[in-house]
Amino acid sequence: MWKHDLKRIQPVSSEWLTAAHERWDRLTKPRKSLGMLEEIAARVVAIREEKLPAIPRKEVFVFAGDHGVVSEGISPYPQEVTGLMVRNFLQGGAGINVLARCAGAEVTIIDIGMKDDLPDINGLIRRNVRRGTRNMAEGPAMTLKETETAMNTGVGMAEAAFARGVLMVATGEMGIGNTTPSAALLSALLPAAIEDVTGRGTGLDDAGLRRKTAVIARALEVNSQAMGDPLSILSAVGGLEIAGICGLCIGGAARRMMVVVDGFISTAAALVAMRLNPAIKDYLFFSHQSSEKGHQVFFEKEGIRPILNLDLRLGEGTGAVLGMQIIENALRLYREMATFEEMGITPGA
Amino acid sequence: MWKHDLKRIQPVSSEWLTAAHERWDRLTKPRKSLGMLEEIAARVVAIREEKLPAIPRKEVFVFAGDHGVVSEGISPYPQEVTGLMVRNFLQGGAGINVLARCAGAEVTIIDIGMKDDLPDINGLIRRNVRRGTRNMAEGPAMTLKETETAMNTGVGMAEAAFARGVLMVATGEMGIGNTTPSAALLSALLPAAIEDVTGRGTGLDDAGLRRKTAVIARALEVNSQAMGDPLSILSAVGGLEIAGICGLCIGGAARRMMVVVDGFISTAAALVAMRLNPAIKDYLFFSHQSSEKGHQVFFEKEGIRPILNLDLRLGEGTGAVLGMQIIENALRLYREMATFEEMGITPGA
Repeated sequence: MWKHDLKRIQPVSSEWLTAAHERWDRLTKPRKSLGMLEEIAARVVAIREEKLPAIPRKEVFVFAGDHGVVSEGISPYPQEVTGLMVRNFLQGGAGINVLARCAGAEVTIIDIGMKDDLPDINGLIRRNVRRGTRNMAEGPAMTLKETETAMNTGVGMAEAAFARGVLMVATGEMGIGNTTPSAALLSALLPAAIEDVTGRGTGLDDAGLRRKTAVIARALEVNSQAMGDPLSILSAVGGLEIAGICGLCIGGAARRMMVVVDGFISTAAALVAMRLNPAIKDYLFFSHQSSEKGHQVFFEKEGIRPILNLDLRLGEGTGAVLGMQIIENALRLYREMATFEEMGITPGA
Repeated sequence: MWKHDLKRIQPVSSEWLTAAHERWDRLTKPRKSLGMLEEIAARVVAIREEKLPAIPRKEVFVFAGDHGVVSEGISPYPQEVTGLMVRNFLQGGAGINVLARCAGAEVTIIDIGMKDDLPDINGLIRRNVRRGTRNMAEGPAMTLKETETAMNTGVGMAEAAFARGVLMVATGEMGIGNTTPSAALLSALLPAAIEDVTGRGTGLDDAGLRRKTAVIARALEVNSQAMGDPLSILSAVGGLEIAGICGLCIGGAARRMMVVVDGFISTAAALVAMRLNPAIKDYLFFSHQSSEKGHQVFFEKEGIRPILNLDLRLGEGTGAVLGMQIIENALRLYREMATFEEMGITPGA
């Protein structure tokens, strides 16, 4: 399923980008004066292959998973917080709920790999692949089969959203400890030195940061035979929610949806997808640069400019949903501004 | 009137900032993980001196004025574009109209110094002080009296908005050639070398940029006897829309309103206000860093971090209205997120 979708992803056409910029240059403003907003809307035009794309229906997918590697003491929060926060999401009290209300986006919460077996709660999508990953510092975090099941879950979410008329999806996650596998993925896939991509996560002190860096080094060493293709790397040092997000990116891009990527963890997932098929980059909108150290390294190495830089490090999809609002503003400018012809103004320089 | 309001402006109290951060630390997220959004909402709390400030009613004020200095050839657009764009604003077809609709902000257009004497058009506020400034390269652009009248017009806009229940105002402007007086103001008030704050505006080529830099040098030289207090500097090398925005900042801060500052020209106006009373800084939200060269110099010299950086250089208040949306998101997070106590979670690090 994910493999099928992966092959469908083609780069956007430069003709559509050019056509969009031609329209921008006819709108009542100096050329290029809307900066990144012009680039953003042009990409929407090229993804949708429509002259005036409609304002898309929006949905954020929050994948929740736990991590065996927390037994190494790499997070200041206990693992139970994953479940508690998922309950918070389902009750509407978390950051992602508030921002989704602001943006007019639907919120979908998926248990893709939580340790806690939550009871049936209204709104919880139960797709648990495994009750938390294995400790990646001792061997592969997941089997290839588990990884692919989680990826297919993400693809399935994109497919179902598309069927409901959603054309813009945001990635989100919850999983205590998940900056650790994300840093391991960035180190392996960019590639980058471990210490350059390993940060304090939700608030590690200096000793904790040293421990986390050492744990990641051990995980990459223990799993060295898996460090070949992106799928094996994801299985070895990734996570179930990360695989789910990777699948959402693939399934979204395959259907020519706009995929808005959240922060550090979502970026690690998107990077796996980019290594599987570089064409996917055209469909991804990196919403913000997190204050988690390795995120900047990713943007520099990949030559990508994030939309926002607000020192966020909450995850859940919060930055992505803020980014969705900027994308919507850009698209509305593109659609609704008057042209020079309509105003009787001759364009200047 | 502006002098009276200027004296009323006091720094916000650190107690209110602390109280706001204490609430942030009780909300269900890692400490400080909402980064700049936490700072933004804390400042709203401290400005309003309310534990849970209401979502403010929003209005953007677009001051339109012309500039005698355009006769020096410092803009690629003819002066008539000021009037044409103001008609565009009044018909709802400009960038600011679209973004204000996205943000739910009212738009008010003020002729404070346009050359064109527009007929009565529904929605146009006629407060013309003078049909364009004098050429600042040959002497003062405005008299002190004209400057103060324009400032008082801005103060009056804040006063009337406050009376209507508006608590967050954005600054906007339209005026062909107005990056030239803005660069002159920044050079004089920061202070900074002319070439460091002089950019291409709406799209000057290299020769045009050299001409513009020389014109600003001449204006500062010709008006050298006025380079003492901020008011004389504003009169000598400012503009009527710039003085209006300066007044809006003063009138807004005096009434404990949030004042969202747009790009390069609005920043020059805000800088005059900051030099008149440094306490005003606490009420100003610098919405974005423009691609106009001198804007970055301002932020570095003043130690201010703008909310957005999207390479905008359109003016009109467009960046400010995008910024208003981010501020509203921050405030809604602050108001609506659940606390740890409510969720039964013990805060970690």
